[in-house]
Formats: sequence, C-alpha cells, structure tokens
Amino acid sequence: MDSTQQVGKKLVEFCRAGKNLEAVSTLYAPNVVSVEVHSMPNMPARMEGIEAVRKKNEWWFENHEIHGGETNGPWPHGDRFIVHYKIDVTAKAGPMAGKRMQAEECGLYTVRDGKIVQEEFFYDMGG
Amino acid sequence: MDSTQQVGKKLVEFCRAGKNLEAVSTLYAPNVVSVEVHSMPNMPARMEGIEAVRKKNEWWFENHEIHGGETNGPWPHGDRFIVHYKIDVTAKAGPMAGKRMQAEECGLYTVRDGKIVQEEFFYDMGG
Repeated sequence: MDSTQQVGKKLVEFCRAGKNLEAVSTLYAPNVVSVEVHSMPNMPARMEGIEAVRKKNEWWFENHEIHGGETNGPWPHGDRFIVHYKIDVTAKAGPMAGKRMQAEECGLYTVRDGKIVQEEFFYDMGG
Repeated sequence: MDSTQQVGKKLVEFCRAGKNLEAVSTLYAPNVVSVEVHSMPNMPARMEGIEAVRKKNEWWFENHEIHGGETNGPWPHGDRFIVHYKIDVTAKAGPMAGKRMQAEECGLYTVRDGKIVQEEFFYDMGG
C-alpha cells in the first residue's frame, strides 16, 4: 500500500502531466470529500464522492483554457500532505468569461488506506 | 479583531523581515500548539504553549546561519491558512553542523479569536 508521501508524489506527477482525471480515478477513495473555500452559484463548497469530484474536474477543464501552470510539493505530515499550484487560465463561460487569470492555491490532502479521502483547497479570493 | 487572512498576512510580513520572534509575541495565543513531522532527540514533535514555541524559534536562530529564504502565501480556508517557506541555512551545531541545506516546507495555521492557536509543519525529510 502506498504511503501518504507516495500518494502525494503520484498526484503531483499526474497534475504536471495534465492528467488530473487519471489522478482522481487512480488515487481517490470512492467516498472522497472535496472542500472549496466558498460555494459558487452552481457548486456547493463541500462535495462528497468520487463522481462529484470527477465532474468538478471535468467542469474545470471544459470551462477554462489552460495556458500554463505549476505544481509543487508534496510536503507531508502524518496522513496528510500539501501541494502548491499556480494556474494561468482564461474562463470560457460564466461571469469571468474571456478574462485571463493567474492564481495560486494549496491543496491539503488526507490519505487513508493508500487513497485520498479528503482534499481541501486554500486560496485568497481577494475578499 | 483580525480575520484569519489578516493574521496570515501579518505572519508573512514578520517572517519576510526576519522578525519571527515578534510574530510569536504578537500573533500567537498563550496556549498555542506547534507540531513538527517528527520528534528530534532534544525536541518532541508536539509542543504546547507560547513559551515553548518562542524557545523553539530562538533555538532555530541560535543554531543556524541563515543565508536566505522565501516566504509565500498566505492561502486561507475558513479559520486556517497555509504559508510556504524556502530556507537556506547552515547548521551551527549537532549532527548536521557545517552543512548548508536548502529545504522547503509549508506551515498550516489555525486561528481562533484573532490569534494563532495551532501551527503544523509539512516537509519531506527524504525518509
């Protein structure tokens, strides 16, 4: 069974290769919980289940043009690890459509039995 | 009272200015808990109380020559925030004495009533 840090390293490899959906299929537990900082009009802050997380990832890739990005880490502590992301995207739809955005965020992941059971995203919306 | 993100921004400012001890005095709660990834021969992984945290910081500055570093963030989520650190130091004592080390770590901080009540450090010792 993979250790927390092994899971973290695989996640970073998948993200660097743009294979985020493969990361979900491979590394996430069926009952994973995903928590954003805020809810959005069409998306609750807290989602449960690998299908919801897969759909959130699909929504992200379908609705954003990805210009570039960076994935750094993982940094582990016990059964958790942190990954740092830089993103550079243009939204294709919604109130931000056509706007190119650079942003940074961290993901805090919890691993149980070799699978990611929780991801929590940390970022500043400038609010 | 400062919000979580305001506390995070002040912590980053203090660290960038090398004023880590001032950060402890100003931003930390009396009963703060500080958790490292591993214990060390002379230091438990978990410490409680602002005096213990102050002494850990003093030990760090007394036992390392600081060549440089970088502090990035904060990235908030509810009552927590993450800060990313790059360090470049040479140990003055102990088994690593004389060895220059570059390392990265993240701190995950929890804020209550405008003060930091917990700090947890995330890093890979290569183990």
